[in-house]
Amino acid sequence: MRFFLTIEYDGTNFVGWQKQNSGPSIQETIEGCIYKITQENISIYGSGRTDAGVHALGQVAHVDIKKDFEPSRLMEAINSYLKGYKIKIVDVKETLPDAHARFSALNREYEYIILNRSAPPAIDEGKVWHQRKLLNIKKMEEAAKILEGTHDFTSFRASQCQSKSPIKTLDKLNILIKDEKIFIKAKAKSFLHHQVRNIVGTLKLVGSEKWDSEDVLTALEKKDRRAAGPTAPAFGLTLLKIEFPKNIFL
Amino acid sequence: MRFFLTIEYDGTNFVGWQKQNSGPSIQETIEGCIYKITQENISIYGSGRTDAGVHALGQVAHVDIKKDFEPSRLMEAINSYLKGYKIKIVDVKETLPDAHARFSALNREYEYIILNRSAPPAIDEGKVWHQRKLLNIKKMEEAAKILEGTHDFTSFRASQCQSKSPIKTLDKLNILIKDEKIFIKAKAKSFLHHQVRNIVGTLKLVGSEKWDSEDVLTALEKKDRRAAGPTAPAFGLTLLKIEFPKNIFL
Repeated sequence: MRFFLTIEYDGTNFVGWQKQNSGPSIQETIEGCIYKITQENISIYGSGRTDAGVHALGQVAHVDIKKDFEPSRLMEAINSYLKGYKIKIVDVKETLPDAHARFSALNREYEYIILNRSAPPAIDEGKVWHQRKLLNIKKMEEAAKILEGTHDFTSFRASQCQSKSPIKTLDKLNILIKDEKIFIKAKAKSFLHHQVRNIVGTLKLVGSEKWDSEDVLTALEKKDRRAAGPTAPAFGLTLLKIEFPKNIFL
Repeated sequence: MRFFLTIEYDGTNFVGWQKQNSGPSIQETIEGCIYKITQENISIYGSGRTDAGVHALGQVAHVDIKKDFEPSRLMEAINSYLKGYKIKIVDVKETLPDAHARFSALNREYEYIILNRSAPPAIDEGKVWHQRKLLNIKKMEEAAKILEGTHDFTSFRASQCQSKSPIKTLDKLNILIKDEKIFIKAKAKSFLHHQVRNIVGTLKLVGSEKWDSEDVLTALEKKDRRAAGPTAPAFGLTLLKIEFPKNIFL
């Protein structure tokens, strides 16, 4: 039986989604719990590999389990072993056997939060990027519009990115402000490695009026990572939601 | 010079606002930082004493300092000593010398968050009260309407409450739902000890359909703490905001 797990986590104390020798990953923590339940040596496949420090409200992974399980029972069982970890399974659905968390995904949505005030965060530490100086939201919105749509995003792509093509379609790049927080939401079928964080690092240059929209256009057109802004820190980023075709679910 | 400090904190690892022998309080942590800056033995006076585990986005306290300080400079200085603590000063204003954080307050606003879903919280652990079973919001709203206005709140008052009168005016008791979270907002000139938490514990009985609105009215009329529901846990509660007359600020 193939199950899709929807996963919420605080990425702070993990090396990221993917298994690594350098420390605990989200992936292996969940695999360890499933092994305790099923005694099966399973692997889980995530929709995307979030970096160390990146959080998720709706990461999705698939797993094949031989034993028969009610989805809600499986969720309860994994969560009982996840006690003490800042990782929880928030939904489990059975799917068609060829549904794939990565390849069946229709789109992914990320949110980056900037805390824009003098005082550093007390409650949201490790969840927001603190910017003391007031950012110019209007200018950031203007610049965001340039990046929406289909482009060669080479300038916003990490050197270690494994995507075949640098051409991606950014369906949405919205900027919302609420109280002292700036929410940057990005939605696309798929993203290049560090694409959202590199976009945010660039928009921050615009917000602080070191750059204007023209500079963003130039950076995009140069197709050179050095032409765009720096990579915003991982901890401000959250993987919000991944959409799948409804007909893969049983 | 008298200053009003607006304070944000994560109450998780503190014994509460007020100094106690049992562990670190918010109050003494801030007083310690101010002492390091001014070498003056000052006391700070909070608008209200939040319990152990209760959080704040906008607690307010006043302090008298002999040295001359730009408010923004004082804020920066305190925050630099608050590094590593989940407490930050988010605003500092100079006030009239007789303005008082507790007695000048026009009203206080609290928010209680219930996470209403099967899975426990991963990211919001220690900030929300987890309820697995779906609560009936309509019924909770109905019951909340009964508690709005001026009443003798003896049934919702902790035995150790030091208020002279049990009669309080609840200006607002709103229930909002967003995704899997229920936000209960309460606004009043002042509150009895545990009043919000006792109200939430009672509304939860209504939401889970063990009680109906009639039972809440009966509990209120009995003027007996044992007649109302249990005290909801501290960690779901946040002191949002305190309003003051504008003319106290210089």
